[in-house]
Amino acid sequence: MASGSDLPHIVILGAGFGGLFATQAMARLEARITLIDRHNYHLFQPLLYQVATAGLPPSDISWPIRSILRQQRNVSVVMDEVLGVETSQQRVVLRGGPVDYDFLIIATGARHSYFGHNDWSHFAPGLKSIDDATLIRRRILHAFEQAEMLPRHDSQAQARERLLHFVVVGGGPTGVELAGTIAELARFTLARDFRRIDPRSARIVLIEAADRILPGFEVSSSGYAQAALQRLGVEVLTRTRVSGCSVDGVELETPDGQRLSTDAATVIWAAGVEASPVGRWLGIATTAGGRIAVNGDLSIPGHDTIFVIGDAALVKDQHGSPVPGIAPAAKQQGRYVARILKARLHHRPAIAPFNYRHQGNLATIGRGAAIIEYRGLRLRGRLAWWVWGAAHIYFLLGVRSPLLITIRWLWEYLSYSRGARLITGTTGPPENKPGS
Amino acid sequence: MASGSDLPHIVILGAGFGGLFATQAMARLEARITLIDRHNYHLFQPLLYQVATAGLPPSDISWPIRSILRQQRNVSVVMDEVLGVETSQQRVVLRGGPVDYDFLIIATGARHSYFGHNDWSHFAPGLKSIDDATLIRRRILHAFEQAEMLPRHDSQAQARERLLHFVVVGGGPTGVELAGTIAELARFTLARDFRRIDPRSARIVLIEAADRILPGFEVSSSGYAQAALQRLGVEVLTRTRVSGCSVDGVELETPDGQRLSTDAATVIWAAGVEASPVGRWLGIATTAGGRIAVNGDLSIPGHDTIFVIGDAALVKDQHGSPVPGIAPAAKQQGRYVARILKARLHHRPAIAPFNYRHQGNLATIGRGAAIIEYRGLRLRGRLAWWVWGAAHIYFLLGVRSPLLITIRWLWEYLSYSRGARLITGTTGPPENKPGS
Repeated sequence: MASGSDLPHIVILGAGFGGLFATQAMARLEARITLIDRHNYHLFQPLLYQVATAGLPPSDISWPIRSILRQQRNVSVVMDEVLGVETSQQRVVLRGGPVDYDFLIIATGARHSYFGHNDWSHFAPGLKSIDDATLIRRRILHAFEQAEMLPRHDSQAQARERLLHFVVVGGGPTGVELAGTIAELARFTLARDFRRIDPRSARIVLIEAADRILPGFEVSSSGYAQAALQRLGVEVLTRTRVSGCSVDGVELETPDGQRLSTDAATVIWAAGVEASPVGRWLGIATTAGGRIAVNGDLSIPGHDTIFVIGDAALVKDQHGSPVPGIAPAAKQQGRYVARILKARLHHRPAIAPFNYRHQGNLATIGRGAAIIEYRGLRLRGRLAWWVWGAAHIYFLLGVRSPLLITIRWLWEYLSYSRGARLITGTTGPPENKPGS
Repeated sequence: MASGSDLPHIVILGAGFGGLFATQAMARLEARITLIDRHNYHLFQPLLYQVATAGLPPSDISWPIRSILRQQRNVSVVMDEVLGVETSQQRVVLRGGPVDYDFLIIATGARHSYFGHNDWSHFAPGLKSIDDATLIRRRILHAFEQAEMLPRHDSQAQARERLLHFVVVGGGPTGVELAGTIAELARFTLARDFRRIDPRSARIVLIEAADRILPGFEVSSSGYAQAALQRLGVEVLTRTRVSGCSVDGVELETPDGQRLSTDAATVIWAAGVEASPVGRWLGIATTAGGRIAVNGDLSIPGHDTIFVIGDAALVKDQHGSPVPGIAPAAKQQGRYVARILKARLHHRPAIAPFNYRHQGNLATIGRGAAIIEYRGLRLRGRLAWWVWGAAHIYFLLGVRSPLLITIRWLWEYLSYSRGARLITGTTGPPENKPGS
């Protein structure tokens, strides 16, 4: 992958928010940029829960990286997988071969983490990729189909309850959004679609280990979210830990130390994340969660040409607290590293260390309820939901026809329909085994 | 699945055009109807090629069967797979258990057929289901990605040509639509997306065994289609048979008996179909292609309560020619069987045998070129294409927001974009092995 060009070669691993914003911020830099991702698309992760709950098709929230960067002539996009980094040789080893770099930006994000219980992943899939989302969509829709197929006999009551029981582990924004949307799917969208079961009787439980859901938000926001979820019929269990996951459901540890098992066919994991294996690639130590503790300029100790940003990095804000693993943080870091490289290539003096500006928190609880904590602004309820929708359409501007998405949303909002209710993929019924 | 109800039980296998139209035509009949399908959605097959070529997301052409029939209270929808029919017991055996019937309508359609060479399916997938379509989409997009990743050296010229070589086997409407759309994808949509390869140099070949493409159409239409494809840069080989398919591409037999092998990474099969295994389920003999030769009222010999319709049936028109396996034929047969059952249940005299009314042929060759042979009407070119688009939007009315699809189409028409260019699924690069 060498080239005769004399321009410095900047290699970026990962086309998430961090990698993409770094790339775009260097649009006019005299350099060769190579952007490498396992997928051919950039994923708008904040709306992934909509795919998992059949509200949007995958292609509405993911766009070919090549299309986004079509006009930026200093970039080559490569679809490949990272195997390691040979820092002494200044090269990245991909499945397809090695790539030399002058500067390296690692923005490969995070996966969900089971706190050492990787065997739980089979029973409680997490939500980080398009394939995760279509798997979860399949499991949710299958559960209703299977419940409908059970004979009407009373002997099947337990199996039916198990199939109509959904547990979401983790009360952060993703967990709250998932629980709220599954409740709406059951209460409204599917309400009249079945003949033997009443989807409205589905039991949706949200589990959080801390003493309140949305622990990163203000205390009053947590209370609002919990009330809004309960209005939708979601049971919220705080101060509750998961101590086991199996084909039979989830084993819980309640605040008073009791263990109880809950027999649910569908369990979704939204509880923790773990950085991609950057420490292994680089051969350096990581902090908890696999993150790399970076210098003030986001480079790694001992290598001023290697930067780690986004969910893979442990960055401290001015108060010494870790910067949260959210899209705005990754974007800010991407733009910051682009500024660093511009200064270096133009032989300008070094710029000040990275300074995270927290802009706020955002979460929705189904249709018509949302929480916005944005600088001085505190907004909740229906208006917040519309602002949330408008803001997302604004973010999507330029990558996809915003008119089209607006109309789809309005349509689904007015009609309560969720258009992407497809059970696809080859693995079918065996995933949700009825009892025993 | 028995019930205390005294109403006659009509079981319909398959929710394609035949099964769905039969179900809807019996909306006011005093009967219990059970509609069984392997999938939870009805697939609008005429637009499946758009999914395979990244123009539409799967959920735009497939709708949950339950939603379509939500208002029809005499229907239960069951998602399950047929294992067999016990005609002496009047029951269908599903994976989930047996279902008794008073009347049975089999409308399970067809799969692609490799004329006895089932081992070709791995190298040349066919296009009948959503999963087929996303597999083909993945292979097409992967081929371009892999070609881009090859080193620039001349030694790789052959491998690059192989990856940019697409072969479509079968010159019926599906093959013509696929070849035309792949050519447009390469010439327009992807034209500026790559840095090392020029997607416009892709070679697209359409192979047909008969002496002209679109053999079911009028001779002049075939000529028009061939010229339109050639304008898009598609090579059309007629009177050419496929004698082998492997990882290296396709082996062809030319009109003069010569064999030549063509080294293509992506081969798509649109050459033949074979009925679903209805003969095996019923334990009766089938004709060529696995179809069941039915009586004049579409019942099967010896069983006047079992009907076979659509692609699984061999039905003769008034001239003794077989009715083609197209959507309008399946719809007419579905409605006809509904009329038969209404007459029987109301003890009215038997109605006249089924009489197929051929309404015409329809094919598109990419954007802005189409052929319509509809009764007296002969339309070709741009106007035909707009009529085709309007007609499809009309067909989709009532099942999906037509406004939404109209806007998506107009947007993609005006912008030349194909929004659903996602490489999804777990099986990745190994599918298109470069040379060797």
